[in-house]
Amino acid sequence: MYGPQFADILGRVRAKRPLIHHITNYVTVNDCANITLCAGGAPVMADAREEVADMVAVAGALVLNIGTLNTALIESMLVAGAAANAHHIPIILDPVGAGATRYRTENAHRLLDELDIAILKGNAGEVGVLAGAQGIVRGVDSEGLTGDPIGIARQYAESEGFTVVISGETDIVTDGRRTFLVENGDPMMGLVSGTGCMASSVVGAFAAVSDDPVIAAAGALAAFGLAGENAAARCGRPGAFKTALFDELAALGLMELDEHARIKEA
Amino acid sequence: MYGPQFADILGRVRAKRPLIHHITNYVTVNDCANITLCAGGAPVMADAREEVADMVAVAGALVLNIGTLNTALIESMLVAGAAANAHHIPIILDPVGAGATRYRTENAHRLLDELDIAILKGNAGEVGVLAGAQGIVRGVDSEGLTGDPIGIARQYAESEGFTVVISGETDIVTDGRRTFLVENGDPMMGLVSGTGCMASSVVGAFAAVSDDPVIAAAGALAAFGLAGENAAARCGRPGAFKTALFDELAALGLMELDEHARIKEA
Amino acid sequence: MYGPQFADILGRVRAKRPLIHHITNYVTVNDCANITLCAGGAPVMADAREEVADMVAVAGALVLNIGTLNTALIESMLVAGAAANAHHIPIILDPVGAGATRYRTENAHRLLDELDIAILKGNAGEVGVLAGAQGIVRGVDSEGLTGDPIGIARQYAESEGFTVVISGETDIVTDGRRTFLVENGDPMMGLVSGTGCMASSVVGAFAAVSDDPVIAAAGALAAFGLAGENAAARCGRPGAFKTALFDELAALGLMELDEHARIKEA
Repeated sequence: MYGPQFADILGRVRAKRPLIHHITNYVTVNDCANITLCAGGAPVMADAREEVADMVAVAGALVLNIGTLNTALIESMLVAGAAANAHHIPIILDPVGAGATRYRTENAHRLLDELDIAILKGNAGEVGVLAGAQGIVRGVDSEGLTGDPIGIARQYAESEGFTVVISGETDIVTDGRRTFLVENGDPMMGLVSGTGCMASSVVGAFAAVSDDPVIAAAGALAAFGLAGENAAARCGRPGAFKTALFDELAALGLMELDEHARIKEA
Repeated sequence: MYGPQFADILGRVRAKRPLIHHITNYVTVNDCANITLCAGGAPVMADAREEVADMVAVAGALVLNIGTLNTALIESMLVAGAAANAHHIPIILDPVGAGATRYRTENAHRLLDELDIAILKGNAGEVGVLAGAQGIVRGVDSEGLTGDPIGIARQYAESEGFTVVISGETDIVTDGRRTFLVENGDPMMGLVSGTGCMASSVVGAFAAVSDDPVIAAAGALAAFGLAGENAAARCGRPGAFKTALFDELAALGLMELDEHARIKEA
Repeated sequence: MYGPQFADILGRVRAKRPLIHHITNYVTVNDCANITLCAGGAPVMADAREEVADMVAVAGALVLNIGTLNTALIESMLVAGAAANAHHIPIILDPVGAGATRYRTENAHRLLDELDIAILKGNAGEVGVLAGAQGIVRGVDSEGLTGDPIGIARQYAESEGFTVVISGETDIVTDGRRTFLVENGDPMMGLVSGTGCMASSVVGAFAAVSDDPVIAAAGALAAFGLAGENAAARCGRPGAFKTALFDELAALGLMELDEHARIKEA
C-alpha cells in the first residue's frame, strides 16, 4: 500500500538527479559512486575540510560513513554536517563498525551529538551500541543486540528525533511514530563487500528528493533489496551478482517497485 | 587519415609497457589502474611526498587527478610534477570538479601555474572555469561554459603552451595550432563512475610513448571511445558495460583503431 | 600429498570465518575485501592509529600492504603489528614496490625490523631487494633478482625466522627448512591490478586458522591459483576474468583443492 509513494520518489531521483555528497571510506567508495548513479543520482566524493562546506551546499543529501575513519575525516564530516544542517540538507549517517572499537563508537557518538542527523542507518550491533542496548559488533559485522530490535529502534528514534534504520534480513525503519519493516533483499548481498554502504547511498538519493525520511529510507531499501533479488535470480556467485546488483537497480521499473516492494507497517 | 599514427602509438604502448605514475583520487583509482593495464601500460600509484620524485623518475607519464584532493596530495603533486618536468616526462592534469568549489579551482590553478603541464583534460565546465570562460560545474559534472568551446580551448592552449582536451560527446583536442574532434564514444560511458578518470589514464599511456601530445591525446580518446562503443554494442546496463569496457580496450585491434577512429581536424 | 591439509584449512576458514584486519593500499582495497569474503573470511579495513590495536585484538590475522604507504599508515602498521605480536596473531607483510623507491625499501625494512612478521610475501624483485639479493623492481612489478630465487628465499627465511613467499609463475614458499613450489595460477592474473594483494589476503585467511605458516601460505596460493585457472578457462579478457576470479574462489570445492593443487616439495 505504500508502493506508489516509493515509485514516486524513485521517479523524482531519476528526474532531478540530486547530487549526493559522500564523505565515506576508501574500501567501498567506488561502489557507492556507481550505485548512486544506478539509483539516478549524481555522486560526488569530497572530504577536504577546505571544500566540504562549499560542496554540500549544492547537494541534495550528505552521506557520512565511518568505515575507514580518521581524525581529519571526522573533522571534515563535522564541517560538512554543520553546513548541511544550515542548508537543511538531510544527513545520512552510517556508523560502520561502531562498537567494534572505542574510537568508532566515540566518533559515531560525536557526529550524532554535534550534528542534526536525519537518518541513522546501521546493523543491529551498531545501532544497539549507539542506542545503549548492548550491541555486539565484530569488525564491521553485527552479532546482534540485547532486547527487541524494533522497540529499541523506535525508542531511540523517538528520543533523538531522527529516523533509525536497522539493516538486516528484515530492515527496520522508524521515526518513533511510524515503523516499517522492509523484507526485500537476498542473502547474496551479504557475500559482497559494501552492500551496506551502497544501501546508505541509495537512502541518500531517496532522502534528497523527499520530505519524509521514513518513507524515503523504506523505499530506498525496498528498491535496493529488489535489485538484489533480481540479481540473485540470475547470478549465484558473488562477483557476477555484484555486477548484476548495479544493473538491476539501474533497470528497476517504477511499477515493479510498486508491485514488489514488501514493506509492512509494524 | 590520422588512423595509422594512432595505431602506431597503441602498438608502442603495448610493446614498451610504459610505467604510468598516478597521483589520483581514491574513488576511481582501481579503475585507472586496470584501464592502464588494458591499454598496455603498467600503472603505479604512489602519493607519499617522500617517494613521488623517485617513482616518477622511472615513469613514462605522470597523471594528476584532483578528484579527492587535499593539502598533502597537492604538495605531493607539486613535488612529483617538478621531478617530471626535470626529467621531461609528460604530465596529464585532470582537474576533476574545478569550478565546483573554490578549493578545487585554486588548486587546479596552482598546479597549472607551478608545473609545466603537457595535457590538460577536463570537461567543458572545468576547462571553462580554468580558461576564464565561465564554466559551470556541479559536483564533478559539467554544465557547460559560455562561448564556443573549440575557440576557447584553442585560445587557452595557445596562450598556455599546452594541449587542451575538452571531453564530451565530441572530444576537442587542441594545442592551439592543430585541433582535432574525436567522435568515438557512447552515452553509456556517462553512466559509469570514473570513465573520465580512466580516459586520462589512457591519455597518459599514449603520451608516454609519443612526442606529440595532440596526436597522443586524440588517439587515446579514440581508442577508449571505441572500446566504449564495442562494450555498449553488447552490454546495455552499466555494471556489465563497465566490465566490457575494460575487455574491449584490452582486445582493441590496431587495424580496428585505424579503421574506426572517428577523428577530424577542425 | 599435501592436498588434504590444504582442504582442511580452507574448510576451517569457511567454518570459522576469521576476521582479517587489513592495513593496505587504496588501489586494491575493495578487491582485498571481496576476495577475503570469497575465501570464507571476514575482512575489516581500519588504519587509524587510535583504533588499530583494538581492531587487531579480535582478528585472526593482520595483513600489511605498503602499496600506497605514507608516514601515518606506517605508524599505524607499527601500532597494529605490535598488538598483533602481543596477541600472537600472525602478520602477513606484502612489501609492494620495495626496491622501486628508497622510501618503500626503508619502510619495508622498518616493518621487518620492528615487528615479528609471520609471512613475508612479495615478488622476486621485492624479496630480492629486502634479502639483499639485488632485486629489481619497476613500479610495482618485479624485474627479477640476482641469483637462485629458491636458495635466496630459503636462506632469508632461515636467517629471519619467518616464512618467505616469492610469488611468480611458480610460487616459492619456504621457512628455510621446508620449501614448497606452487604451480597453480594463470597468466591472466597478471593482467588484473591487485591479484598480488588479493593473494596476500587469502594467505591471511588461511594463516588465521592454521599453526603452520608454510602450509597455510602454500595452500592459500594453490587455492587462489586454482580459482585463477578456473576463471581463465571460461574468461579470456581481464574484466570478465576478474569477476570470475572472485566467483571461482567462492565456488572452489574442498575436494577440488585436494585434487588440483599442484604443490611439490623442493
